[in-house]
Amino acid sequence: MSAGWFRRRFLPGGPLPEPQPPGPRSSPVPYHRPRFLRGSGSSPGATDSSRRSDSRPVRCPARGRTLPWNAGYAEIINAEKSEFNEDQAACGKLCIQRCEFGIEEEWLTVCPEEFLTGHYWALFDGHGGPAAAILAANTLHSCLRRQLEAVVEGLLASQPPMHLSGRCICSSDPQFVEEKGILAEDLVIGALESAFQECDDVIGRELEASGQVGGCTALVAVSLQGKLYVANAGDSRAILVRRDEIRVLSSEFTPETERQRIQQLAFIYPELLAGEFTRLEFPRRLKGDDLGQKVLFRDHHMNGWSYKQVEKSDLKYPLIHGQGRQARLLGTLAVSRGLGDHQLRVLDTNIQLKPFLLSIPQVTVLDVDQLALQEEDVVVMATDGLWDVLSNEQVARLVRSFLTGNREDPHRFSELAKVLIHNTQGKDDGATGEGQVSYDDVSVFVIPLHSPGQGSGGH
Amino acid sequence: MSAGWFRRRFLPGGPLPEPQPPGPRSSPVPYHRPRFLRGSGSSPGATDSSRRSDSRPVRCPARGRTLPWNAGYAEIINAEKSEFNEDQAACGKLCIQRCEFGIEEEWLTVCPEEFLTGHYWALFDGHGGPAAAILAANTLHSCLRRQLEAVVEGLLASQPPMHLSGRCICSSDPQFVEEKGILAEDLVIGALESAFQECDDVIGRELEASGQVGGCTALVAVSLQGKLYVANAGDSRAILVRRDEIRVLSSEFTPETERQRIQQLAFIYPELLAGEFTRLEFPRRLKGDDLGQKVLFRDHHMNGWSYKQVEKSDLKYPLIHGQGRQARLLGTLAVSRGLGDHQLRVLDTNIQLKPFLLSIPQVTVLDVDQLALQEEDVVVMATDGLWDVLSNEQVARLVRSFLTGNREDPHRFSELAKVLIHNTQGKDDGATGEGQVSYDDVSVFVIPLHSPGQGSGGH
Repeated sequence: MSAGWFRRRFLPGGPLPEPQPPGPRSSPVPYHRPRFLRGSGSSPGATDSSRRSDSRPVRCPARGRTLPWNAGYAEIINAEKSEFNEDQAACGKLCIQRCEFGIEEEWLTVCPEEFLTGHYWALFDGHGGPAAAILAANTLHSCLRRQLEAVVEGLLASQPPMHLSGRCICSSDPQFVEEKGILAEDLVIGALESAFQECDDVIGRELEASGQVGGCTALVAVSLQGKLYVANAGDSRAILVRRDEIRVLSSEFTPETERQRIQQLAFIYPELLAGEFTRLEFPRRLKGDDLGQKVLFRDHHMNGWSYKQVEKSDLKYPLIHGQGRQARLLGTLAVSRGLGDHQLRVLDTNIQLKPFLLSIPQVTVLDVDQLALQEEDVVVMATDGLWDVLSNEQVARLVRSFLTGNREDPHRFSELAKVLIHNTQGKDDGATGEGQVSYDDVSVFVIPLHSPGQGSGGH
Repeated sequence: MSAGWFRRRFLPGGPLPEPQPPGPRSSPVPYHRPRFLRGSGSSPGATDSSRRSDSRPVRCPARGRTLPWNAGYAEIINAEKSEFNEDQAACGKLCIQRCEFGIEEEWLTVCPEEFLTGHYWALFDGHGGPAAAILAANTLHSCLRRQLEAVVEGLLASQPPMHLSGRCICSSDPQFVEEKGILAEDLVIGALESAFQECDDVIGRELEASGQVGGCTALVAVSLQGKLYVANAGDSRAILVRRDEIRVLSSEFTPETERQRIQQLAFIYPELLAGEFTRLEFPRRLKGDDLGQKVLFRDHHMNGWSYKQVEKSDLKYPLIHGQGRQARLLGTLAVSRGLGDHQLRVLDTNIQLKPFLLSIPQVTVLDVDQLALQEEDVVVMATDGLWDVLSNEQVARLVRSFLTGNREDPHRFSELAKVLIHNTQGKDDGATGEGQVSYDDVSVFVIPLHSPGQGSGGH
């Protein structure tokens, strides 16, 4: 993406995006649940939409089916909101092959044997329909594999070489690479960042071709070479739960947490707001009788607050409005990072959401090999439906108390995922003492870090 | 500042800034040391420039002179680099007066009596000459006082009211202000942010009027209503040292720490680089024989690294080059935030540094009233000359060992500041075991938090 591309794509004055000729439309993305749920018990669907919340089914993989690292999974559909579950999930083995330069130097040969093995778990929380989340679940792991294969040579050394191809021994280079302290893990972070962007492009093309719309958040955990990478774009969350420790592995990206970035873009390109919104933040929506008064406000460069005299343009709808769960970008979207939404516009206007959205994830690295792992150490990944009603501490309490009493059942991590979801349905089991109810879709992976034989991959 | 202003000021195509008519020039900013050093012992100056480093004098306030909170101060000039000390310091009482609306409503009456009292300590590390730092030392506290007076009514409640003037009781407003959780401290943070910007404008005007150039970093500590606010723009640093704790109260802003912000601006406005620089980061400067090879690189949106095939434009000088102490923005500047530098250009080009510099500080709040203060708790503020050769831990060790043996001397905090500076001059006293030498100006405040009678101000 270039600045020129951004200006042409989003700013008025450039060549208008031509309405696409109808042409051969691809068929809509078919709705489905994750493959690893096949053969599992209850199957929610349209018929569930009339059920009361206390009878909504929680689904998890069939007892015979093993997910990578013996991870557990469970999900519940928010039957009151939509016919489909807008959450999606994916997991699997990540087989990285090596590309080698042949003798002819110009030819790449893909070595057929697997070179590096990783594992992959992903949650996607869709909005505006399930299509984007389904496409992401079908696509992102392939994008990631491709991106990793493009740099796989660099992953082998603890410090990636300045030059990628094997042709240059780099003996002529001074030690600059070493001095910059670039590590193999920086390449994996870069590959995750690129994979999210590539997947976002694919989703944009596919949705346009099939005449569908929508977007999704993405939370991905990848194990590779003894490390666990957690990449997040959106408001899902991953935490590490250990006996004496809770470690947050992701941050949420919402209009509130990314206020300054979003306001700054509107400051640089006021055209993006088409005169309909104010980029300034006020403690509440201003009214006519605030005109001329001095009220609290915040602009893009401010962390603190100040007062300004209200002008007429301040009465416009705010770029970011509401707070907490209610915060919305351009009155429309509750997240500020994710995949898709290429066609999303503010209702009844031509104002696009996409320039304000980032598809780039933030990546956290957990050095699993350096943890003195204990048997009950797990990573809990879940969409926002879980975290809206359970705090990290409540989840950790549930995890610890469940695993202490369940050491043998090979299916216990899915059972634990189920317990977590049950605790979002107002079924107070005494562990949380809250009995709060989530009316959102909820999907949960529980990844044990100490599973025997999980290995860290290798070559 | 508006986006339009930014474009007109920095981008080609807008109306060119007219060369100012010569007019009456104001006289150059006179060089001086902080007032509170008057009457102190040694006085470095031009005659010191030939001295060897081990005989450079360390200056601190005369024994009879008391700084706010009985703070200590010491400084050393880097006689080998320049005739003047480019560091400057200021401290004092901050008297906030109240503006009241009179009966006529349109008239402001400044109440003569002091309404709120704070204290202020500031360090400025100049570059390109001492003028900007001197102006900042003369000006910033006035800007801050003005900004605080503009919002002083809001500071009185623990939650500032939506409307500033006393005219509106706000009973018609719902609880939005409360819901947003805006606190009095947010107003102080906002006032600090605005004061830095205002001071930057003043410096720009004054330097232009006097035909001088230069810039400076700014590190400010302000005590107000039981809290200590630390505002930083540049690479100075403040830390809290307690018996069992070191707390970092500021972060450094350099081309390296602000890489993504700087690269992003060059991405949005490539015109700012005038075709002379590449915004991409590489592990080292590329050479002709890297052309066509795949090398490690990073762009504005990446935290990780990836490989790209080198094109001719990648061989340009990098926007950010070097690392650590050597890192430079546009080959010119070692800091990315600060005051001044309005006229600074890349050598022999028309490329301006200012659009890449921020005058906005990052503000940290220390709730002093909530600390269970002990007698030896101090805040150490110092310019980068100290931190280049002493780690936070080394400084904390020196602080603790000095204060343990010096409980009575009322001048002990200046003596401690002196000890810290001595430890940057290769005079290994055994506490650090390093004996490293700083060839930069060094200025240090040591602010005791537990001074009797310091109070927290009030009204």
